[in-house]
Amino acid sequence: MLGLMQNDPTSLISMLIHAARWHGAQDIVTRSVEGPVRRQSYAETLDRATRLASRLRDFGVASGDRIGTLAWNTDRHLETWYAVSGQGAVCHTINPRLFPEQIRYIVDHAEDRLIFVDLTFVELLAGLLPELPKIEAVVVMTDRQHMPDTTAFPCPAYCYETFLAEGTNDYDWPILDHDTASSLCYTSGTTGNPKGVLYSHRANLLHAYASCMPDVFDLSATDSILMVVPMFHANSWGLAYAGPLTGAKLVLPGPHLDGASIHQLISAEQVTRAAAVPTVWSTLLTYMDESGQGIDTLEELVVGGAAVPRSMIEAFDRRYGIKVTHAWGMTEMTPIGTVNRPTSRSHALDGEELLDLRCKQGRVPYGVDMQLVDDDGNVLPHDGKAFGRLLVKGPWTIASYYKAPESALEDGWFDTGDIATIDADGFMQITDRSKDVIKSGGEWISSVEVENAAMGIPGVRMAACIGARHRKWGERPVLLVVGDERATLSREAMLPHLANSLAKWQLPDAVIEVEDIPLTAAGKIDKKQLRQKYRDCLSD
Amino acid sequence: MLGLMQNDPTSLISMLIHAARWHGAQDIVTRSVEGPVRRQSYAETLDRATRLASRLRDFGVASGDRIGTLAWNTDRHLETWYAVSGQGAVCHTINPRLFPEQIRYIVDHAEDRLIFVDLTFVELLAGLLPELPKIEAVVVMTDRQHMPDTTAFPCPAYCYETFLAEGTNDYDWPILDHDTASSLCYTSGTTGNPKGVLYSHRANLLHAYASCMPDVFDLSATDSILMVVPMFHANSWGLAYAGPLTGAKLVLPGPHLDGASIHQLISAEQVTRAAAVPTVWSTLLTYMDESGQGIDTLEELVVGGAAVPRSMIEAFDRRYGIKVTHAWGMTEMTPIGTVNRPTSRSHALDGEELLDLRCKQGRVPYGVDMQLVDDDGNVLPHDGKAFGRLLVKGPWTIASYYKAPESALEDGWFDTGDIATIDADGFMQITDRSKDVIKSGGEWISSVEVENAAMGIPGVRMAACIGARHRKWGERPVLLVVGDERATLSREAMLPHLANSLAKWQLPDAVIEVEDIPLTAAGKIDKKQLRQKYRDCLSD
Repeated sequence: MLGLMQNDPTSLISMLIHAARWHGAQDIVTRSVEGPVRRQSYAETLDRATRLASRLRDFGVASGDRIGTLAWNTDRHLETWYAVSGQGAVCHTINPRLFPEQIRYIVDHAEDRLIFVDLTFVELLAGLLPELPKIEAVVVMTDRQHMPDTTAFPCPAYCYETFLAEGTNDYDWPILDHDTASSLCYTSGTTGNPKGVLYSHRANLLHAYASCMPDVFDLSATDSILMVVPMFHANSWGLAYAGPLTGAKLVLPGPHLDGASIHQLISAEQVTRAAAVPTVWSTLLTYMDESGQGIDTLEELVVGGAAVPRSMIEAFDRRYGIKVTHAWGMTEMTPIGTVNRPTSRSHALDGEELLDLRCKQGRVPYGVDMQLVDDDGNVLPHDGKAFGRLLVKGPWTIASYYKAPESALEDGWFDTGDIATIDADGFMQITDRSKDVIKSGGEWISSVEVENAAMGIPGVRMAACIGARHRKWGERPVLLVVGDERATLSREAMLPHLANSLAKWQLPDAVIEVEDIPLTAAGKIDKKQLRQKYRDCLSD
Repeated sequence: MLGLMQNDPTSLISMLIHAARWHGAQDIVTRSVEGPVRRQSYAETLDRATRLASRLRDFGVASGDRIGTLAWNTDRHLETWYAVSGQGAVCHTINPRLFPEQIRYIVDHAEDRLIFVDLTFVELLAGLLPELPKIEAVVVMTDRQHMPDTTAFPCPAYCYETFLAEGTNDYDWPILDHDTASSLCYTSGTTGNPKGVLYSHRANLLHAYASCMPDVFDLSATDSILMVVPMFHANSWGLAYAGPLTGAKLVLPGPHLDGASIHQLISAEQVTRAAAVPTVWSTLLTYMDESGQGIDTLEELVVGGAAVPRSMIEAFDRRYGIKVTHAWGMTEMTPIGTVNRPTSRSHALDGEELLDLRCKQGRVPYGVDMQLVDDDGNVLPHDGKAFGRLLVKGPWTIASYYKAPESALEDGWFDTGDIATIDADGFMQITDRSKDVIKSGGEWISSVEVENAAMGIPGVRMAACIGARHRKWGERPVLLVVGDERATLSREAMLPHLANSLAKWQLPDAVIEVEDIPLTAAGKIDKKQLRQKYRDCLSD
């Protein structure tokens, strides 16, 4: 028997309609690509998104078509984001920080018909266009006055403001099935081609509600949210939905991510909550320390995308009274996986114990389930010690990749590629990537733990730990270090230090001093390259 | 094109599974019908709900079957609630405060196969059973030791604990379509038979997420929630879902709703948030004032079901530092309609202005839309002055009543039966019921406003205002008053007082002093009866 409630499908455009109707005068503030700060209400934003949707329809964009964006977080990007998915098409946010060849692959694979591009990336795109014959037109996200020369483009190029002005706000948003695709975001693994995650309206809707809960991002109409996390990066952590859903002020930094710009925007717009990767906050912290300026209104920084250094949590808290909250997610999870929020039990902790806890990635909201398994698929206990492959599932977790017929799941679970522990209160902590963990006999050694131990030794500037082949143990850890001039980084000199925080069987079999450690495009240690070079250094 | 996320249907049992898995040790605390306080974890609760579901399956309960409950808020009621809907059957919570004839009608109309009944209501049910031949069995929600004599019942009667113990926890919850009916709750209008609202898993799921948001009930894992609002009354405002969803402690008062019991439970269980109708909180306030005992942990009382007196908001706030938050909803809305939460603009108010605002019913969360219309269906402005019929819609608003083929909607909107205003910030305030508003010429006069004005006059103990037929104006207000011994309640004596807060055209054409004013079963003024008696008092 079916219930008798109104079960009309709920399209994501309904969030912007809600905001325009109930928080119509609330601002979306953008530090524009062109420079000046722009201020636009939710009511205006809906009006403009509606015009854009009608213009896209007139262009011939149909349900399911992919429309690419190469853009910063701005009001125009937000309008495009809502117009495209509201229309039944798919908003494909492209990460401009990828290698050009990856961008070309992604646009081609997605079969984007149109690309919306910020001024910043026009040159990048222009270089790729000759190899992207499926692109029918480019829309440059600026006004007439700032329109660059596009005469050399192999396809038509429109000025965003002109394009939008040709639309009408007399447009009926279509009724879309709950599971209609809304948006597309590619993940760039270290191996193979990037893979597309195709979000649905339903997944984003549930995720958006969950994201506002006190135990997730804790958002309300009185908040002013600085959305540093890019819309092209893991679905902007859902904040591009949570803003309109709650009626909060949305503050969009455009391309201006330096400490001074971020600080100025937070102060001027009385930002209460902000979300970004750790590097942005460490830049801000440096700026605040050097300029001697605090921030009054800011209650919380949500940090994800990489592990947060304990020192950063401590510094923001003690020096500025700002709470740094650790979150973890993945593009494949829309992206919220866990947030570090207290339980009744952990609520009582303080001092070092609390800091230890706050360094963990956190606990799942309703809508995410997770478990740890060993290499044989045995489920591991939640004791804070056992570590294994982290598997996840739920209504906003991926089922399969775009254009990949095979399921992305094993027995209904998605393998995150992370190695983690989960404690008795449900707090998860990532200890390594599964491809980096060192399998020594029956035991796993976390490469990150060895690196952290090494980084604590005076004179060590950089450290990387990989597994090298070993006749008896299968693999054993090898540590590569970059030292400052005066350091003596022999194995003999380092072992006593390392033994302070590592067990005997976790100690590296070799320590190799190197000039430099190679990094990936994303700024992480390129362990793939290191493994190729040092994999056999123990077997000679 | 469909998204590629995991779109497995999400049954409501997943909330209890989440709680058992991630907040397994968290308590559900019940002041039992038998007397003692019982403490049971979420893990135990899931185990018991699973056993109950398996036992119901063995009994022959099938998908879509209606299972009635006549019960207080207790752990056993919560287990039944989850077991029944998780199994694909429909949990029909029956309001024991209705007239016996209405209960008989409801149980018969719902075709309940089984009734779960608290000790308190065994006698009531026993009296009705001879007229309810479709009931196949009764389960008395107690243990062996407290089992009453049921030998006279015309059907088998089980002891709950014995019944449950015959189940197994080796039971697979079925996969249910999103729109599967989960539960049934009848509304008792003042005219006609009660009407059934058939909730779906999807509506309850979205509603549950929304209910936890900071701008709704603001619930997290560290909360201890006192759920006074009955599960048989408007879906317990969704709190029976929000508790497990967040992992909060749930505190269930059973039948013990007096001031001392409520105060004791709040103190002992360190309750942070509580929800009930105003009468419960006014009883608590009286108890606190008389006993001189405050409550440390309590942050907020959410009040709905009737307008909250301004004096109550003030008293809790000033005397005890407890925030009283006004909410409004309907059984037909699962039930959340509005909650009085600040916007960026209203945030700045204080003193009397803030109190005025907090007396309003509040604003809609995403998931509810509302509008005001006049008698001709014209949409009225949100200016805080224009008042009209309040219409609502959204994914947790009713589409049609149970077994009523016709739609409950007009053009997609549900008429709440209330007359309200909405101000520029979206705050809605109910001014009257639409059947009570007095239509004088083209103008509407709020019967409630006239009553409030009258109640402010010394010597008036009770006041009721109805519309009487009028040759020229269609209707004109007539005021009925009950005075204390010394009062002179003639029209002439009262008009100058009334004119302080009412416009001239709103003043009653007649004031009639009466001995008593009739009340309905729910304790509200029985205006239907008054209208029958006084409808023609102006036309003679």
